[in-house]
Amino acid sequence: MQFKYLDNKPLETALSEYISLLQDTQSVKTEVIPVKNSLHRFTSQAVYATTSSPDYYAAAMDGIALRSSITFGVNETSPKILEIEKDFVIIDTGDCVPEWCDAVIMMEDVQYIDSRFVKIVNSAYPFQHIRQIGEDICSGEMIISSFRLITPSTIGALLAGGVEYVDVVVKPVVSIIPTGDEIVDIADKISHKGKIKEFNSAIFSAYINEWGGECIVYPIIPDSIELIRNALTDALTKSDIVLINAGSSAGRDDYTSTVISECGSVITHGISIKPGKPVILGIAGNKSVIGIPGYPVSGVIIMNTIVRKVIELWGKIYRESEMSINARLSKRLVSSLKYKEFIRVKLGRINEQLIALPLTSGAGIITSYMRADGIVTIDKNLEGIEAGSTVVVNLLKPLSEIEKNIIITGSHDPMIDEIDDILQCNKTAYSLSSTHVGSMGGIYAMKRGECHIAGIHLLDTETGEYNTRYVKTYCSEVDCTIIKGFKRVQGIIVAKDSRFSITSIADLVNHDIRFVNRQKGAGTRILFDHLLKKYSIAPDMINGYGREEFTHISVAQQIASGGADAGLGVFSAAKMYDLDFIPLCEEEYDFVVQSQFFNSKGWAVFEEAINSVVFKKRMEQAGGYV
Amino acid sequence: MQFKYLDNKPLETALSEYISLLQDTQSVKTEVIPVKNSLHRFTSQAVYATTSSPDYYAAAMDGIALRSSITFGVNETSPKILEIEKDFVIIDTGDCVPEWCDAVIMMEDVQYIDSRFVKIVNSAYPFQHIRQIGEDICSGEMIISSFRLITPSTIGALLAGGVEYVDVVVKPVVSIIPTGDEIVDIADKISHKGKIKEFNSAIFSAYINEWGGECIVYPIIPDSIELIRNALTDALTKSDIVLINAGSSAGRDDYTSTVISECGSVITHGISIKPGKPVILGIAGNKSVIGIPGYPVSGVIIMNTIVRKVIELWGKIYRESEMSINARLSKRLVSSLKYKEFIRVKLGRINEQLIALPLTSGAGIITSYMRADGIVTIDKNLEGIEAGSTVVVNLLKPLSEIEKNIIITGSHDPMIDEIDDILQCNKTAYSLSSTHVGSMGGIYAMKRGECHIAGIHLLDTETGEYNTRYVKTYCSEVDCTIIKGFKRVQGIIVAKDSRFSITSIADLVNHDIRFVNRQKGAGTRILFDHLLKKYSIAPDMINGYGREEFTHISVAQQIASGGADAGLGVFSAAKMYDLDFIPLCEEEYDFVVQSQFFNSKGWAVFEEAINSVVFKKRMEQAGGYV
Repeated sequence: MQFKYLDNKPLETALSEYISLLQDTQSVKTEVIPVKNSLHRFTSQAVYATTSSPDYYAAAMDGIALRSSITFGVNETSPKILEIEKDFVIIDTGDCVPEWCDAVIMMEDVQYIDSRFVKIVNSAYPFQHIRQIGEDICSGEMIISSFRLITPSTIGALLAGGVEYVDVVVKPVVSIIPTGDEIVDIADKISHKGKIKEFNSAIFSAYINEWGGECIVYPIIPDSIELIRNALTDALTKSDIVLINAGSSAGRDDYTSTVISECGSVITHGISIKPGKPVILGIAGNKSVIGIPGYPVSGVIIMNTIVRKVIELWGKIYRESEMSINARLSKRLVSSLKYKEFIRVKLGRINEQLIALPLTSGAGIITSYMRADGIVTIDKNLEGIEAGSTVVVNLLKPLSEIEKNIIITGSHDPMIDEIDDILQCNKTAYSLSSTHVGSMGGIYAMKRGECHIAGIHLLDTETGEYNTRYVKTYCSEVDCTIIKGFKRVQGIIVAKDSRFSITSIADLVNHDIRFVNRQKGAGTRILFDHLLKKYSIAPDMINGYGREEFTHISVAQQIASGGADAGLGVFSAAKMYDLDFIPLCEEEYDFVVQSQFFNSKGWAVFEEAINSVVFKKRMEQAGGYV
Repeated sequence: MQFKYLDNKPLETALSEYISLLQDTQSVKTEVIPVKNSLHRFTSQAVYATTSSPDYYAAAMDGIALRSSITFGVNETSPKILEIEKDFVIIDTGDCVPEWCDAVIMMEDVQYIDSRFVKIVNSAYPFQHIRQIGEDICSGEMIISSFRLITPSTIGALLAGGVEYVDVVVKPVVSIIPTGDEIVDIADKISHKGKIKEFNSAIFSAYINEWGGECIVYPIIPDSIELIRNALTDALTKSDIVLINAGSSAGRDDYTSTVISECGSVITHGISIKPGKPVILGIAGNKSVIGIPGYPVSGVIIMNTIVRKVIELWGKIYRESEMSINARLSKRLVSSLKYKEFIRVKLGRINEQLIALPLTSGAGIITSYMRADGIVTIDKNLEGIEAGSTVVVNLLKPLSEIEKNIIITGSHDPMIDEIDDILQCNKTAYSLSSTHVGSMGGIYAMKRGECHIAGIHLLDTETGEYNTRYVKTYCSEVDCTIIKGFKRVQGIIVAKDSRFSITSIADLVNHDIRFVNRQKGAGTRILFDHLLKKYSIAPDMINGYGREEFTHISVAQQIASGGADAGLGVFSAAKMYDLDFIPLCEEEYDFVVQSQFFNSKGWAVFEEAINSVVFKKRMEQAGGYV
C-alpha cells in the first residue's frame, strides 16, 4: 500500500515544455495524393501553378467574336450589318477566341437578322469581354503556401493551376489503449455488476477523426504492468501518438506511469487543472505517450487542451473551437486556488445580453459536455468569479446556433425534452436549453433575467391556486407573462410489488421505508411539505426526507434500482420505469415567459410546438397529462 | 439563332418557393448505424437512454470504502484505527462500492500504518464520494432530440446511456453531370487548345462532402440534348439531388433548361444575383435538379446560396459559415441595381478595427474565392456602398484565423508569397494576406489605415534615392516606419530568341514590338516613365503602352504565351518563364510598417522571416535579388 504524490504543474508550463520536447524529436511525414481527394488535408509545401488559367484567350460572354476595328464609329444612329464567318463567329462563354478576332459583343447587344446576318449598334473596344491568359492564375505563381488547410475552393484553384497531385502532411496515427480491470467492452452483452462500459475510446476516436488523425483502438488491457507494457511497445511501432486511458492517477492499480517510465520517460505527472489533474505526459521512442484519466469529462478536457495541441504539430486544426466570446456569468463560481478549472456553460441571449449559465460540474457527467455551449476557464490564482462578471467563454458550438437557444429553466418535466424534439422535427433552427433547478429556482432565474421561460408548478396552499401568486410576489419588477401549460398527475411512486402497502402520505411514516425526496425549491418538494403539514407529519418521521434528487426521472430511477422504496413524482416518470403509482393531485404546470422573448420568433415556434397535435399525442403516450 | 431571355427573380423569393416545393415532395430516409461510427451524422429521431450511468453505486475517488456510522465523532484529536476487510476495503475510482459500505474516504485523507491497518482523522458522511446511480443519465431520459448533429461528446453520452445503435438521416446522394463540348477531363493529357479542363465537379464534390452528402460524378457529356437527357434520367434513379454543370445560360448550346423541362419542370431560370445569374432550379421525379453556371465562382456562389440549402433539408450543416461580423469597407463598391451582388473580401484588424478589403471580382477568378475571408452582399436595390461604411461580412474562415492576417499591400514581388510560406513553415499562426495595387497604391493604403505593411520601390528621380521621400510626402500624418527590404534587378523581359534585337529602352520604339505595361501607380510603371523621359521617348511611340498588367508574373506570362514581345519586370519573373532579360537597374524594395503593428507579435514573426537564412536561400534560388 504505497502511493505517489502527483505533480501540480500549471497547464501552460507543462504544455509548452512538452510540445517543445516533441518538436525536437518529431518530423512531419508527407505523401502525394490526387488533389480531388485532398479535402481537409494540409499542404506540406508551397504549391505553384504549372499552367495558367485560362491558358488561351477565352470569351467571357455568350455572343459574337470579331475584330474591334470594324466596329469603330458604330452607334444607335449608324448601326452596322455583319456577315457570319466573314465578319464574326458565334461564340459561347469559355470558348477560344479565334486568332483573327480581338473582341466579343454579348448576345444581348446583337440583333439577329437571319442565319447569316446580324446588326450591331455599339462599337467594341480591343479585348472587350475577352479573358486574358493567366487572368486567374499565371503558371509559376504560388497558389497556396505550406501547412495550409485544403478547402473546396483550394481544390478548384489547384486544378485550375494545372496541379493534379499535391504533397500533403500524412495524417497522424493515434493508438488508444483502454486499460483497467473494472472496464468491459461496450459490445459485451453479459451483465457485469460494478463494471464500467468502455466508451472513452469511442469519444477520443471521434475527436481524433475530427482533428484530422487516424485511430487504432486496442482491446481492453487488464491492470497488469506486463500486458500494458506489451500493448505500449506494440503501439509505438504502429503509431505516432499513444493514448493510455485510465491508470493515470495514484490508485493501487495505476501502472501507466510505471510503464511509460520503463519504455521512455515521464515528463509530467499531474497538472493543476480540474477536471483532468492526474494526466501523464510522456515520451517513448521519440513519440508522444499520454496517460489520460478515466472519467469521461476529465478525458475530454485533456483531449481538448493537450492531445489537440500534440496533433496540431501535424497541421492546423480545421474546426474553430478556439473562438471565444464575452458573456455575463449568471451565478457565482467557486474555485480552488490549487487548480485551473474548466467550467461547462450554456449560453443564451436574454434582453440583448449574452448570459453564461454554468452546468453541473462532476467529472463523470459526460452529458454536461454534450449540452455545453462553451467553457469558462477559472485561473489557478482565483478563488472564483462573482455573478454578473464578464467572462470569456471558449465556444464549443457555432455562435449562430447559440443565438437560437431558448433558455428554459425551473421545474423538471419529461415533456420539456419532448418540446425540444418537436422544435427539431419542425426544423425551426431553435433549440431548448433546459436546466432543472426546481420551480422556485425558475422564478428566481426569471427575476434575475437569466432565462427566456421558467417552467413552474407552485401551489398556493392558502387559495389552492397555482403559480399566479408566486409570479406576482417574486417577479413584480420583471416584465413577464404566464402562459398556461398542461396539467399533470402527481403522486407517490412506489417500487413494483413493494413489500410495503403504501396507499397514502400517512403510510410513508415507517422507518423501514426508504423515501427519496426532491431538492429544496422544487414544486414537488413544496407539495410534499404541504401534504406532510396537512397530515401533521414531522419531516424527521420520514426516513430519507433529507435525501434529495433533482428530477422526477432520477427519483423513479432510485426506486427502480432498489436504492429507495418511495418518492413523490409525476405519473409519466413512474410509468417509464414500470413502477406503482398512487395519484395524489392534479397540478398545473405553466410557463412564465419573459416579455421581450414573448414577442420574438423563438416564442412563436415554442407556442406552436406546445399547441400542436403532436405534443398532445406525446403527452397521451407518456401518460398522466391532461 | 434563337435565344431565351432569363428570369430575374430575387434570390430570396426563388429560394423559398423552391425549398417549399421540395419539402412537399421529399421525405427523409433513415438508417440504423453503430454509435461509434456516427460522428457528424444527424439523428433522425429522439434517442432515450436504455441504461443509467453509472448503473451501480461507484467510488468517486481512490481510497477506502466503509460504513459512515463507524466514523462519527472521529477528528484530528480523536483519530480512529481501522482494520482491512473488517472495517474497510481499498477501492479505486469507478469501482463498485460493496453493499455494506455507504461512504468513501479519499486516499489522501488516509494514513496507511501497515498492510492491515489504517488511521483516519476525519469522519465521513453517508454517500460521501459515492456516485449515485443515474448521476449522469437515468434510463428513459432523452439524451438527444431529432435532427441533431452527433459530436464526439454526443457519442460518449449515447454509449453511457446504453445506446449502441442510432437511427440517423441517410446522407443525401448528389449526382454531378458536367456538360459541354468545350470541356475536357482534368486527367486528359492530350493538349486541347481552347478546351477548358473540367474541375468544377471536384470543387462541388468537396463542398457536398463537407456538408454531409455523397457524390456521384458523371463523365463529361457533350452538348447534345439526347445525351444530357440520358444522363439526367440515369442520375434521377441513383441520387436525391442532380446538379448539371454549365449549359445553364442562354447560349446556342445551352440545353440544360430544355432537358429539365422534358423530365420534369423548371421552376426558375435566372436569379438576380451576380455572379450566378443564369442558374436553373428544377424538379424532376420529385427530386431537385439544379443547372449551375459554368464559371467557377458563379458555381461556388450557387453551391453556397442554393445547393447548400437543399442539402440542409436532410439535416443541419455542421460547418459554421453562416457566421457574420461587422467590418469597415476599405473602398467604394459599385453595384448594379439589377442584381444582388456577392463580393469576396479579405479581412484584417488594423488599429483595432476590422477592415474589409474587396478582391478582384471576375466570375472566372476561383483564386479570389480561395483567398477570401468573407463575402459582402450588396442588395439589389443599392447602387453601391461607400468607402468607410460598416458592412456585414459572412465569414468563410474562422475568426481566430482572420485575426492573425497580416495585411500587406503595394508592389508585387514573388518574394512576398515566399515570406508567407516561411510564416507557415515556422508554424507562426500568422498569414500574409497580400494584394497587388502597385507601390503608390500601397502608399495610399498606408495613409488610409488599410494595411499593416506596404511593399514599395519608388524612385525619387531627382535624388536617385528610393522610397523615403514618397513616405514623407504622402504618409506625413501616419505613424509608420520604413524597414529596408531587399534589392532586386529590374529590366526588360523579352521573348526567348525573339526576332527583335532588344538591348535597351530605345529599341522598344518599334511598331512591330508588342509591349505590355504595368498599371498606373506601380513602381515599375514609374520607373518605365522615368526611363522614357530620360531617352526622350513619347509614350505613344511604344506599341502597347496602354496595355496594363498587375504583376511581374503576369507580364512575363503574356510574353511567354506569345501575346506580347516585351515588358518591364524583375529578373525572377523572367527566369520563371525562361525568358530573355536585359538588366536596367537595381532597385530597393522596402516595407513601410504601420507603427502599432510594428510593436506586435505579427511584425516580430514577419521580421524573423525576412532576416532568416531560408529567405536568403529562396531569393538566391529565384535569382535577381541582392
